[in-house]
Amino acid sequence: MDPYQTILSLRAVRSFTHQAIPTDVIGRILQAARWTGSAKNTQPWQFVVVSERQMLTDLAACGTYASHLAGAVLGIIVVTPPGYALFDAGRVTQNMMLAAWFDGVGSCIASFNDEAQARALLNIPAPFQAYTAISFGYPHPNDPHEIEGQPARAVLASIGRRPLGELVHWEQW
Amino acid sequence: MDPYQTILSLRAVRSFTHQAIPTDVIGRILQAARWTGSAKNTQPWQFVVVSERQMLTDLAACGTYASHLAGAVLGIIVVTPPGYALFDAGRVTQNMMLAAWFDGVGSCIASFNDEAQARALLNIPAPFQAYTAISFGYPHPNDPHEIEGQPARAVLASIGRRPLGELVHWEQW
Repeated sequence: MDPYQTILSLRAVRSFTHQAIPTDVIGRILQAARWTGSAKNTQPWQFVVVSERQMLTDLAACGTYASHLAGAVLGIIVVTPPGYALFDAGRVTQNMMLAAWFDGVGSCIASFNDEAQARALLNIPAPFQAYTAISFGYPHPNDPHEIEGQPARAVLASIGRRPLGELVHWEQW
Repeated sequence: MDPYQTILSLRAVRSFTHQAIPTDVIGRILQAARWTGSAKNTQPWQFVVVSERQMLTDLAACGTYASHLAGAVLGIIVVTPPGYALFDAGRVTQNMMLAAWFDGVGSCIASFNDEAQARALLNIPAPFQAYTAISFGYPHPNDPHEIEGQPARAVLASIGRRPLGELVHWEQW
């Protein structure tokens, strides 16, 4: 696939097959994370890579819309120090999702509303934070149009993307 | 270039040639922004695209390490509502930088310490925030090893990237 089209076609995938992700693909996802740029190159991140079924199921209970983790082949938890690292966490998450998608692996972000519980499960020490995890797996051919049992339209602010005319200002607001 | 190698090879470029960026390349950068995923698809962003030399120079004075904006061919200011949108701002920024790099266009992030001044210059209304801008341009062949007149090593937390062994935890911390 054309790399630019790969960027445009990246969508949240919440339903996965049982197919294992090859070790070299996992390695590429992690290298994409490692090489992500960050403020002053602080690289404010650590990653916990989870494949154990019970842990994925337990983590799925730590967020309101995190249930997709229970069906993921792999979960990567993005661990950051407090503060502006949230911006860099977004960058590194995007890089991992794109690197996976280049290999045909779908992904979805989970936010841990119960962040303390996620940290306890994973044994992550203070002051690190673990608000974000990513589910990975090959897309299920019948990815449902529901999220947590509700129609997607009831959960998402909108379907699709707003046109550029509503987003872009030229030279000034 | 192999798309995966493009992800790995993305680096901050702070020095640019005067070569104009073609309109279709700018369009691809903006479409990459538009199609970026966000929490519940809220798409919490607006963009101000600046090519006027004086405005770029004025914006360069709004941040401690923002001087690269003065030499950029194009600046894109990422405008967000307050709050968790910072994570999504990181995602959309990464997507734009990657889309540009696929076309050979380098980029660097500027953080506006004087965010109020940046908003005033660009006429951005409350409660939107404008903490982040991206400089774009074709990389200058003699990209200096200095940042704001200081050796890069004095500004950056480190050079290069830490090895995966220092970043990755398997199954648990």
